[in-house]
Amino acid sequence: MFQKILIANRGEIAVRIARACRNMGIRSVAVYSKEDKNSLHVQLADQRICIGEGPARNNYLNKEQIITAAKNMGCDAIHPGFGFLSENADFVRMCEESGITFIGPSADVINSMGNKSHARKTMMEAGVPVVPGTKEPVKDVEAAAEKAKEIGFPVMIKASSGGGGKGMRVANSADEFEFNFNMAQRESVNAFNDDTMYIERCVLNPRHVEVQIMADNFGNVVSLGERDCSVQRNHQKLIEESPSPAIDDETRQRMYKDAVLAAKTVGYTNAGTVEFILDQSGTYYFMEMNTRIQVEHGVTEMVTDTDLIIEQIRVAMGEELSFKQEDIQIKGHAIECRINAEIPEKNFMPSPGTITALHLPAGNGVRVDTGLYTGYTIPSEYDSMIAKIIVHAPDRQAALQKMRSALDETVIKGINTNLDFQYQILRHPVFCEGQADTGFIEKLLRLD
Amino acid sequence: MFQKILIANRGEIAVRIARACRNMGIRSVAVYSKEDKNSLHVQLADQRICIGEGPARNNYLNKEQIITAAKNMGCDAIHPGFGFLSENADFVRMCEESGITFIGPSADVINSMGNKSHARKTMMEAGVPVVPGTKEPVKDVEAAAEKAKEIGFPVMIKASSGGGGKGMRVANSADEFEFNFNMAQRESVNAFNDDTMYIERCVLNPRHVEVQIMADNFGNVVSLGERDCSVQRNHQKLIEESPSPAIDDETRQRMYKDAVLAAKTVGYTNAGTVEFILDQSGTYYFMEMNTRIQVEHGVTEMVTDTDLIIEQIRVAMGEELSFKQEDIQIKGHAIECRINAEIPEKNFMPSPGTITALHLPAGNGVRVDTGLYTGYTIPSEYDSMIAKIIVHAPDRQAALQKMRSALDETVIKGINTNLDFQYQILRHPVFCEGQADTGFIEKLLRLD
Repeated sequence: MFQKILIANRGEIAVRIARACRNMGIRSVAVYSKEDKNSLHVQLADQRICIGEGPARNNYLNKEQIITAAKNMGCDAIHPGFGFLSENADFVRMCEESGITFIGPSADVINSMGNKSHARKTMMEAGVPVVPGTKEPVKDVEAAAEKAKEIGFPVMIKASSGGGGKGMRVANSADEFEFNFNMAQRESVNAFNDDTMYIERCVLNPRHVEVQIMADNFGNVVSLGERDCSVQRNHQKLIEESPSPAIDDETRQRMYKDAVLAAKTVGYTNAGTVEFILDQSGTYYFMEMNTRIQVEHGVTEMVTDTDLIIEQIRVAMGEELSFKQEDIQIKGHAIECRINAEIPEKNFMPSPGTITALHLPAGNGVRVDTGLYTGYTIPSEYDSMIAKIIVHAPDRQAALQKMRSALDETVIKGINTNLDFQYQILRHPVFCEGQADTGFIEKLLRLD
Repeated sequence: MFQKILIANRGEIAVRIARACRNMGIRSVAVYSKEDKNSLHVQLADQRICIGEGPARNNYLNKEQIITAAKNMGCDAIHPGFGFLSENADFVRMCEESGITFIGPSADVINSMGNKSHARKTMMEAGVPVVPGTKEPVKDVEAAAEKAKEIGFPVMIKASSGGGGKGMRVANSADEFEFNFNMAQRESVNAFNDDTMYIERCVLNPRHVEVQIMADNFGNVVSLGERDCSVQRNHQKLIEESPSPAIDDETRQRMYKDAVLAAKTVGYTNAGTVEFILDQSGTYYFMEMNTRIQVEHGVTEMVTDTDLIIEQIRVAMGEELSFKQEDIQIKGHAIECRINAEIPEKNFMPSPGTITALHLPAGNGVRVDTGLYTGYTIPSEYDSMIAKIIVHAPDRQAALQKMRSALDETVIKGINTNLDFQYQILRHPVFCEGQADTGFIEKLLRLD
């Protein structure tokens, strides 16, 4: 049993983790930058410690500082949340060396899944479907061009160490290949200090469907349904839902099996997400595995009636999973809208500032995860996501209507938000009919 | 399909109904007293109409005024919530005569269950267990005393038209009987203009356990689990939970069957609650049937994953129940704490006023039904209940801990509340062990 957990994050996920600790009777310690001193997560944790000021690299990304804080405050574990240090294998090793439990998978697993080219190879060997393309990483542009021709254009050129769209380029023809390969490789060297690349067939406007898995240290791996996260802008998810309206039950079951196979193949432990892309014929391919809790985990909690943060902490304490595969029944439909402090009309420019009035939706099957309160000042240093509105209803149509009602009811004054933009999506026939793919938002914005 | 529903209530239940209407795509009309003009329910409804000022008898209890408002606003139905006109058979008849659907059971059913002595007789004849006592109502003190002797002291003397403790007295011995009978009868005449009484064996410190039922117009009656509401002060519930920690599965199943039998016996439709008392040997007796939605319905929604307000509206529109008995699986444990604007130290004196700061708990499995917002002024004219905090967790211990966390997190400034008092109960070993009966709060207060 952990006595005290340090929460190495900020915002709504830090609030979420602090609440889970309270619910388990475990004490929690918040770390915070000077800019975040009035944040809700700082108030909700049992103890708090300032770890610097300014941009995240000085505080929430400062590994040494956070380990020192954990030691000084007598914490036996660290929950990293998502982003920041959550997928940093070095940090995990530092935790281990300091005798502090990192609540997440091992450093080795994070490493092996963090290298996308390596992960791809591992999955190919295990029999998990991957997008046709190179098996081994490539560095040389001419050899790469040869491979691209074999695969057939258009192709995706991706950095082995990439993520979130960095070091990624499409080449539509052999003529474009060299230029784009060089661009992507340079980006990868600059961002990740790694010149190894891989080439895949380009899947045009795919759906993004991911499977939540939980694994303990006893070899138990359970899948907890899928989430459709196709509504994205610049690789940032805007809306997530479960189940996916894009797949049939046969595909769904195969996808769950492949997700569990992927996790077992690498000896995965704790919470993780296996991301797939689905092409227009309904064929899916492994894309990557996220070795942490996701922003959109609440959607899964709503349809499976589980608590993934509590489960993560339990698994890290060495307990067995509290559920078996047959206990997981997907019930109803859940949707999440991410609310960002931004101005959609001005190319989604961030809109920090002070909340002067606030009314959040509530009621049966409505959940809002947020760090907002009236009088709170959103700092300009960090991510613009300020709230997640999640609804649960018996079916997709009812969930859509519930989300519209929830957005309608929400009042956030003092800053700009994407509430109206989300409302527009929730009324768009393509989305309402479950037809939105990852190109949907781009098309919507072009038409505006 | 209803086009527009008038919400004949205020506070959190009016907010709850407005949200249900939105979720169904039905327009809603709020009625409000002048004192409530800034209330959340007024803002959340699609339209609003003022129906007077001052105490409830001038507005929320003013039948003619509300019917006129419904007609003028073009409403095809009225949802009465709880309290006010929700169990007023005359009002139901007036609705019928005006061609407006009353969302609830028929006037006849309300009448027959409203007369406690009549309801008791009906249940005895149907085979539902009732507390040993008189079958026919009594008026005469000497005949009543004779009956009391047969039943055995102590006895309860109750008004046929009574409710909420009015017209109710205990007689511990034959010596006390005449005085107490006369007192109770006088109270009944004054309050209900009815001198018929009944006598029951006095069940000392019983548990209060009630069964939620839903019935449609096609003879389908479904039970949705029980709620234990033993934690009461002056017959006002403070905490409700489901399942009840006081009954075993065999008793539970029998109780469900008796609740369904009770509803079927009177041709019940829409949402209702069959209230039982449970004596210390574990034997239960029918107490009364509440012919409306209850304050604590959210507890049932959490463990059954249903929406009882939406179900009420559907049934009133003539639809079949959306679930069958076998669809209702009780999952986990839910607890509700009623938060009142009052001063427990000053004999629970109401504490109206303006909310200057507000932070409500939230997160996975936490629901708060309230009309509160920062800057809202709680008027002194109405009930002091201002919020219901409801939590859901896998088992009772986890739910207790979650409720403690939720109460801990709650901040309501500008008024006094019973938050600390609730917290005290949530830590009390008698309650934590599931041993609290209806005498628990009284004992707790005597010890303070």
